[in-house]
Amino acid sequence: MLTKVVYEEARRRALEFLYRAGIAVSDAEKENIEVAEYGKGDLDSIGLELVVYVNTDRCCAKELVLFPGQTCPEHRHPAVGGEPGKEETFRCRWGEAYLFVPGERSENPQGKPPAGYEKHFSCEHEIVLRPGDQYTLEPDTLHWFRAGPDGAVISEFSTKSRDELDIYTDPQIVASQARTL
Amino acid sequence: MLTKVVYEEARRRALEFLYRAGIAVSDAEKENIEVAEYGKGDLDSIGLELVVYVNTDRCCAKELVLFPGQTCPEHRHPAVGGEPGKEETFRCRWGEAYLFVPGERSENPQGKPPAGYEKHFSCEHEIVLRPGDQYTLEPDTLHWFRAGPDGAVISEFSTKSRDELDIYTDPQIVASQARTL
Repeated sequence: MLTKVVYEEARRRALEFLYRAGIAVSDAEKENIEVAEYGKGDLDSIGLELVVYVNTDRCCAKELVLFPGQTCPEHRHPAVGGEPGKEETFRCRWGEAYLFVPGERSENPQGKPPAGYEKHFSCEHEIVLRPGDQYTLEPDTLHWFRAGPDGAVISEFSTKSRDELDIYTDPQIVASQARTL
Repeated sequence: MLTKVVYEEARRRALEFLYRAGIAVSDAEKENIEVAEYGKGDLDSIGLELVVYVNTDRCCAKELVLFPGQTCPEHRHPAVGGEPGKEETFRCRWGEAYLFVPGERSENPQGKPPAGYEKHFSCEHEIVLRPGDQYTLEPDTLHWFRAGPDGAVISEFSTKSRDELDIYTDPQIVASQARTL
């Protein structure tokens, strides 16, 4: 469980990264930064900080902050009620991130699964994202991503987010508990 | 018609504004900046510069650049084939912009229609957008926007863009001719 102390420290750090990236956020957004620790209690390894700009029935935009080496665990966005799963584009705004998707195993990848969690990471095809780089994921595609040594700020443009329906490779991660304010 | 000389100069200026806003774009994006002059041949008054990041059947994200005082003319995005019109969120990243939508007339607005084009602007309810501010437009809502004295850079998050179907208040603006590379 995310404690208030850990949450407040993560929120403060996330704001620092947004500032470094030159991304302006409103006072209300600053107060409502989301911190996902995925029930692991190990935020520096497995975690993600988010500012959700908009999430309607049709589309969604967020800013994602990853601290240095922090990893968003492997998951996919399944179809819902006849509608294809979430389609998302990750665009790196600042720092560097390593996105892993299904496909041929990358030789000498920049990123690797965080120590101790390797068994819950299966995608080995790496896409390196530096500022101005982006990648669009088809619906229901397994993926995970990790920040480089300086951290990363990534814009996500997508169809509707339904975090509670995400399916994680790690069966201990229950999507509905993944995100805690 | 947009001449090559005007296009190249607008492209160069747009890159300057993106740089000031701290927004990284790829070499391919730099080469493919779109310049819309809406058939007016008066780009400093009526025009818009765009970097389209992604535009799939389901969602779209762009960066919009407006030079100082430049105006995107009044238009709406109609329903298409049973699907509601484009829904869009404008988020100011840099500078200042004045967005006008239907509603009560604003007293002492910061923005006003560009001189000589007043008759093709009907929305008088102003929303001032500064960095970190955003506004979501419902589908098929008439709107126009103008940059403040320093220009503006605005992220647009939306459903699919179908520029060729946009309906402009100025009947001389034929949407399919609005955008020229």
